[in-house]
Amino acid sequence: MQQYIPSQPDGFNKSMKSAISDDGVPVLSKHYVVPARCGVAVRLAAGHSLTITNPTGWQVCDFWAFNASDTQEYMSMPHVHTDLLSISPEVGDKLVSNLRNPLLTVIQDSSPGVHDTLIAACDANRYKQLGCAEYHDNCADNLRQAMIAIGQVAPVVPAPFNLWMNVPVLVEGGLQWAPPVSKPGDTITFKAEMSVYAVMSACPQDITPVNGDEGTPSSLEFVVNAG
Amino acid sequence: MQQYIPSQPDGFNKSMKSAISDDGVPVLSKHYVVPARCGVAVRLAAGHSLTITNPTGWQVCDFWAFNASDTQEYMSMPHVHTDLLSISPEVGDKLVSNLRNPLLTVIQDSSPGVHDTLIAACDANRYKQLGCAEYHDNCADNLRQAMIAIGQVAPVVPAPFNLWMNVPVLVEGGLQWAPPVSKPGDTITFKAEMSVYAVMSACPQDITPVNGDEGTPSSLEFVVNAG
Repeated sequence: MQQYIPSQPDGFNKSMKSAISDDGVPVLSKHYVVPARCGVAVRLAAGHSLTITNPTGWQVCDFWAFNASDTQEYMSMPHVHTDLLSISPEVGDKLVSNLRNPLLTVIQDSSPGVHDTLIAACDANRYKQLGCAEYHDNCADNLRQAMIAIGQVAPVVPAPFNLWMNVPVLVEGGLQWAPPVSKPGDTITFKAEMSVYAVMSACPQDITPVNGDEGTPSSLEFVVNAG
Repeated sequence: MQQYIPSQPDGFNKSMKSAISDDGVPVLSKHYVVPARCGVAVRLAAGHSLTITNPTGWQVCDFWAFNASDTQEYMSMPHVHTDLLSISPEVGDKLVSNLRNPLLTVIQDSSPGVHDTLIAACDANRYKQLGCAEYHDNCADNLRQAMIAIGQVAPVVPAPFNLWMNVPVLVEGGLQWAPPVSKPGDTITFKAEMSVYAVMSACPQDITPVNGDEGTPSSLEFVVNAG
C-alpha cells in the first residue's frame, strides 16, 4: 500500500544538470555555484569542511546531509533538537542523524546565527496551496534531483536545516515568516564527522518573504576544503 | 547503500501481543488500554473520532498517524508547523501529512493544551546515550511493533505528536525537559479526515522527567466513536 515514492521528483528543473561531478566529489578549494532556484549535492569526506556563502544575504539555503555509506541515515532536526536541547544550532554544535550519530559540526557562522529547524522543505503541494497553477520550482524536488544527478536517491525528504531562514517562535508557540537577518557575503562552515552527501537548495520561494521582501531567489556559493 | 531498515524494531516487548484486532479495526465505543511502556495501533475510518485518556495525568503519549491506503503518507510535524504557523496545535486545528493533506483534526482537549511537536521519539540509541547497558523499551520500537502486530509496517519513524509532553521553548531557542501540566483523566480527541492508522505509545521514558518526576511509566486508554 505505497503509491507515494518519496525519492521521485514531482517535476524537474536545471538541478538535473547542475551536478559538480558524476559522483558529487568536489575539487578541493574550488568555488562552486548553486544556481538560483536549484539544488546541488556534494560528497564530503570525513574531516573535510564545507563553507556555504550567501552572496545577497537574503537567500535561504535548505540544507540536508546523508550518511554516504547508508542514505537511510540522514541529518534529522527532531533528533538535533533532542541532542542539543535547542532549536537553534550554534558554532560548536554537532548535528546528529536519525540514528543519533554526528554527521556534521558547525565550525563557523559569520551571520547573527538565525536559522530555522522547524519548517518543512517547500514542495509542489505547498505551491499549489499558495495558488500556483503551474509547476513551481521547490526545495524537495531540488533535493531529489541533486541526488539523482550524482547517481544517488534521497530515500525520504527529511526536514531540512534552513540556513539563514528567519522563522521566530512567538509566545504561545506561534511562528512568523520573517526576512533573513543575514548580510551579503555571510558564510557558514560545517566539518564532516563522517563521509556524507551534503545537499544545498537555493530556495525558490518567491511568494512568502522568507527570501527577503524582494522576493527574487538568487544563487548560493560553496567550497570544500581539506580540514 | 541502505543497511538501516527503518521499519525493523531494535528489540521487542509486549507491544507485539497488544493489538486490539488482527487488522487494527476497533469495536466502536469499546474502551481499550495501551499497556505501560507499549504501543498500540488502531484503524480509524474517515469521520470516526479517537479519544485518548491520560489516567495518571503525567503519562506522555507519542502519537502518529499514517494514511491507511498509503503508509508512505503520514502526519508530519514540520509540515504541521508550516500549515498552522505554530508549534502548538489547538482545538480546531487540522494535522497535515508530508503531502500536506489533513489526516486528523483536534476536536477536544481537556488539558491546558501543552503538547510537543519538536522532539524525536525515544529509541534504542537514545537509551544507550542515556547510559542503559541493556535494551530499554522505546517509542520508536513501540510504533514499529504496533504496526507489525496489525499486519502493517511503519516505513519510517516520523517525528511524533507528543501528547501531554512539556518541552518549553526558552529564549534564544533553548528547550527544557519539564513534567506534564495535564491532570489525571485528561482527554484529547481527534477526528479522522481520511482512513488512517493511528498509533499510540505509552512513552517508557523513566530517566528524564518527561513522564513526571515519579519516573513511573503508566498506561493510557482510548476509545473510537462513530463521529
